[in-house]
Amino acid sequence: MGILSQIRDPRDLKKLSLQELEKLAAELRQEIVRTVAQNGGHLASSLGAVELVLALHTVFESPRDKIVWDVGHQAYAHKLITGRREDFGTLRQFGGVSGFPKPTESPHDVFIAGHSSTSISAALGLAIARDLAGEDHHVVAVIGDGALTGGLAFEGLSQAGHLGKNLLVVLNDNEMSIAPNVGAVSLILRRLQELRMNPNLHRLSRELEERFRRLPGLGNFTAQAMEKLKDALKYLVIPGMFFEELGLSYFGPVDGHQIPAMQRAFREAVAHGGPVVVHVVTKKGYGYGPAERDPERFHSVGPFDWTTGSLPAKTERTFTEVFGQALVELGEEDERLVAITAAMREGTGLSAFAHRFPDRFFDVGIAEAHAVTLAAGLAAGGLRPVVAVYSTFLQRAYDQILHDVCLQNLPVIFVLDRAGVVGEDGPTHHGLYDLAYLRHIPGMTVMAPKDERELRRMLRTALAAGVPVAIRYPKAAARDLPLEKHPEVLPWGRSELLRDGSEVALFALGPMALLAEAAADRLATQGISCAVVNVRFVKPLDEQLLLALARRTGRVVTIEEAALAGGFGSAVLELLAAHGLGGVQWRALGFPDRFIEQGPREMLLERYGLSVQGICAAVESLGLTRMAGAVVI
Amino acid sequence: MGILSQIRDPRDLKKLSLQELEKLAAELRQEIVRTVAQNGGHLASSLGAVELVLALHTVFESPRDKIVWDVGHQAYAHKLITGRREDFGTLRQFGGVSGFPKPTESPHDVFIAGHSSTSISAALGLAIARDLAGEDHHVVAVIGDGALTGGLAFEGLSQAGHLGKNLLVVLNDNEMSIAPNVGAVSLILRRLQELRMNPNLHRLSRELEERFRRLPGLGNFTAQAMEKLKDALKYLVIPGMFFEELGLSYFGPVDGHQIPAMQRAFREAVAHGGPVVVHVVTKKGYGYGPAERDPERFHSVGPFDWTTGSLPAKTERTFTEVFGQALVELGEEDERLVAITAAMREGTGLSAFAHRFPDRFFDVGIAEAHAVTLAAGLAAGGLRPVVAVYSTFLQRAYDQILHDVCLQNLPVIFVLDRAGVVGEDGPTHHGLYDLAYLRHIPGMTVMAPKDERELRRMLRTALAAGVPVAIRYPKAAARDLPLEKHPEVLPWGRSELLRDGSEVALFALGPMALLAEAAADRLATQGISCAVVNVRFVKPLDEQLLLALARRTGRVVTIEEAALAGGFGSAVLELLAAHGLGGVQWRALGFPDRFIEQGPREMLLERYGLSVQGICAAVESLGLTRMAGAVVI
Repeated sequence: MGILSQIRDPRDLKKLSLQELEKLAAELRQEIVRTVAQNGGHLASSLGAVELVLALHTVFESPRDKIVWDVGHQAYAHKLITGRREDFGTLRQFGGVSGFPKPTESPHDVFIAGHSSTSISAALGLAIARDLAGEDHHVVAVIGDGALTGGLAFEGLSQAGHLGKNLLVVLNDNEMSIAPNVGAVSLILRRLQELRMNPNLHRLSRELEERFRRLPGLGNFTAQAMEKLKDALKYLVIPGMFFEELGLSYFGPVDGHQIPAMQRAFREAVAHGGPVVVHVVTKKGYGYGPAERDPERFHSVGPFDWTTGSLPAKTERTFTEVFGQALVELGEEDERLVAITAAMREGTGLSAFAHRFPDRFFDVGIAEAHAVTLAAGLAAGGLRPVVAVYSTFLQRAYDQILHDVCLQNLPVIFVLDRAGVVGEDGPTHHGLYDLAYLRHIPGMTVMAPKDERELRRMLRTALAAGVPVAIRYPKAAARDLPLEKHPEVLPWGRSELLRDGSEVALFALGPMALLAEAAADRLATQGISCAVVNVRFVKPLDEQLLLALARRTGRVVTIEEAALAGGFGSAVLELLAAHGLGGVQWRALGFPDRFIEQGPREMLLERYGLSVQGICAAVESLGLTRMAGAVVI
Repeated sequence: MGILSQIRDPRDLKKLSLQELEKLAAELRQEIVRTVAQNGGHLASSLGAVELVLALHTVFESPRDKIVWDVGHQAYAHKLITGRREDFGTLRQFGGVSGFPKPTESPHDVFIAGHSSTSISAALGLAIARDLAGEDHHVVAVIGDGALTGGLAFEGLSQAGHLGKNLLVVLNDNEMSIAPNVGAVSLILRRLQELRMNPNLHRLSRELEERFRRLPGLGNFTAQAMEKLKDALKYLVIPGMFFEELGLSYFGPVDGHQIPAMQRAFREAVAHGGPVVVHVVTKKGYGYGPAERDPERFHSVGPFDWTTGSLPAKTERTFTEVFGQALVELGEEDERLVAITAAMREGTGLSAFAHRFPDRFFDVGIAEAHAVTLAAGLAAGGLRPVVAVYSTFLQRAYDQILHDVCLQNLPVIFVLDRAGVVGEDGPTHHGLYDLAYLRHIPGMTVMAPKDERELRRMLRTALAAGVPVAIRYPKAAARDLPLEKHPEVLPWGRSELLRDGSEVALFALGPMALLAEAAADRLATQGISCAVVNVRFVKPLDEQLLLALARRTGRVVTIEEAALAGGFGSAVLELLAAHGLGGVQWRALGFPDRFIEQGPREMLLERYGLSVQGICAAVESLGLTRMAGAVVI
């Protein structure tokens, strides 16, 4: 690593020639590819943004100037040249460098960006703060075209255009977010690029202006009409009217792999002043053939062989896959069923459904709130929409779930993938809060399957019920169970008693039920008799069964892959308290009230006691153990 | 009511002449003004939309055609002509007609609309459902210019433009939402209206097109350039490029008080096909002088004298007012303090701050998510933002609170007005869920003041703390206490023991603490000794005090003006369970797990046991009472 190893700080870049910068870009790519091949990560976006990172850091002076990344997985090159090269091998590992900008990691990381479409709002805040303090640094938001489809980005653009503060918005247009973009914004961006291909337009405009000037009778036109005419001519040559209409000046498009062109555009933009958009066109995966050829697969990858670019064949069946297949089967049976996702077709397992039923599949782009209200409209129109979104991203539609779906009791099925700890993506992406943000909404039903067979049953149950239902499952392998051809409809609001027992009741949610069974086995060898309940329904709770077991055993342990505050265990406490069962002894396993770090899922589960051993320890702490040395309270 | 009394159904309108429709409009206005003067309600918006309602219902065939209102408080005239005239006197009363569209009330109310910016997404869902079912009715979204500033509306427009389904979006542009709009969208709409004032433009366009045609050398232009030229000319005369860029056809602007003009525009628009925007310009409060003159004050009003239009002078001091005044004082002391609201300057009490510190006040329009991420940016830039939003609307920024503010531990203060039951606006607006959606977020602090003096102390405490803090208070009168000039900073995470007692501990949140004191007085006369705690901090809880009292008394009653599921009482249960205090007897007062109806706040509080009597009954149910006949368990 000839040049990269000498870059301790972005200031070091300023001494480099263009040739050296280009060499550095190649070194950065190599470092990124090798590290991601080792650790997994977001490859294609970061490769596409290497020259952009170098152009930004040569024109601006970070951290004095503020660069806000949106979303942050474009920013690996940024990390490498801002003092984190030596630690970069720990990317996304437990205790290592985060896969996203993280202010506590570096002063060059201005703002966390795991969820998208936030940068313009955040940068506008920084720009206002700068002006109130009388400072004069630059503020730059770097937003992908995918993130631009989010309503939050529009809200930010709209106010930025209105306030007129100096603010540079760099639109990193790589022609797709995760899946190819949908929606009108995407069409606009495509049109801009087509126009760029036409060298005659600028000449045409100059000609027209000249001829207008010579037209007879021009004196009759009002000043206002002339102004309008000027706008019209501008529209002829400046393809960014969408941004201009919102009050931002538009520069571009610029080739996002030509450092000098970008440097020039950035300098012109800030010299121009006010809110400015520079439209940069990049190629996802640029410089690494396999990722260029299949950027969607290389968006987010696990470890792979970087020399060949071959991704390891998936060997394990996941909940995601089973869901995708089950939905196709249900779609065949029930033509009211439609599926919606928010830029996560592949990630949520909906590709097969989209292929089979293109008219009944809707990828709304990064627009979760719209996904949910659209679903409410579809349901009001007699359809049965299934909204498949990661748990962490559905947070963005909390109000729409409450106000548009549940208040009208509309039959929308929410499928929450990645509910629990997601592993290496860390705290911005863990899906730990869905139980807390869903279970208090009146009319909502919340289920969690212990395995893929039960997932299939729950989908059928939800479809049959015709009310708002959320089904949550983790980013985890399934059990490779033989699948039923005709999954049964589960009894509504009923848990499954996996085994009876007399001394302790284990109430376990989702796949935690399997751990609870194993723990019960182990505890049995110590002479402790545990009942194990596969909860199935967080809401409505199976009051009869849970209360009976709590009464009988006098000892309850709840187990959930979720935040404890306001979660499933909390719901059980409310139930017990309402029935005067305060005397029951109690342990709750789940995640404590702080943000959970990045790290392999299994490791994080272990760390927080969501393991056979953790469950045994919780039971033993109830003072039942026959083993010497146990804690007795 | 000559004509109105004969209208049982929108079909009856079709027999009316234009003159009769205009007479009906006057009758509708009279009915609306008199009813709102009696019951309170949203006056100015509904008055502005009377002709719009009549034009829509004469062109379309509701309920076969679907009309989605956004937000619903434009829709009183719609209610009056769709079979609810006779019940209209019960508007917004307990058990009466809702102030918003309500599908359970009428088949003409297609979709609930208490929160704004939802109509386009919902209507798009209905249009997709229609097409999949092979039906051919019309779907119409009626969206105000204020609602259009919300990102959700943009997400909906963007997908509507992309999908190309037949869908009519009627933009009811009344030049303000609640407060005058802010942001670029508003500027665009203003520009459209200015253009409309210029009759020369269409002529100019035709002239230009003609002259272009005769220009020599035109043959050299490529077909693509000619297309572009056509677009440019279109831009010259069609002011709706913002919508056209998003893929929707634009018609307008049309005078929204001329029924025939709107009828024509709607017919042309649906004949044109695809997604179409018809831009209708109305005047808020139209036809009722006092509301025309001061539409902001007449946006939402309590009962008033309709003959004079004089609103009763406010006599009671509210939490809202005290907050507004306190913020000005804090702003004088600390120049880092900035205030943000989302189209609720007046409603949140920020007018005085906006007037005193115009550079430090930001009304972002109806864009709560942006309000919060902007605040995060401001805080990251060293400022101390205060985001003042109603509890129910902050639901729309749940993810931004979690991901942008709390994950970065940024010092943003959230002030949640209308936290609790809001009264007549009903279930779409009750602020019952904030405790449940905030308290599980790591790093968040949640406070509730028992009175206005404590509110002032809490604001100062939050400002001093420099971490994310939410302060929630109800839509209620304050106590008229003398206010301290220099409110003290409260001890962090400490509750206030209002009175000690030995048999029962009452843990009461916010103004419920005053009820708890009164209940304790009454219980004392029965010989029951109650400790009363003013909780102050829902998070972090005062573990020491609460545990000590629970241990000592063995009986706890929690009291909160909020949903019980996942709320404050639930947090106390988690605390007790974690400390092995399961044996404590327990009652929780708050709102049950269903949507709460409309009705006067005091009445709803009574109804759900949040009253002196309700608290006494809860205590008595603990089996302590010395009175004969009490329930003993």
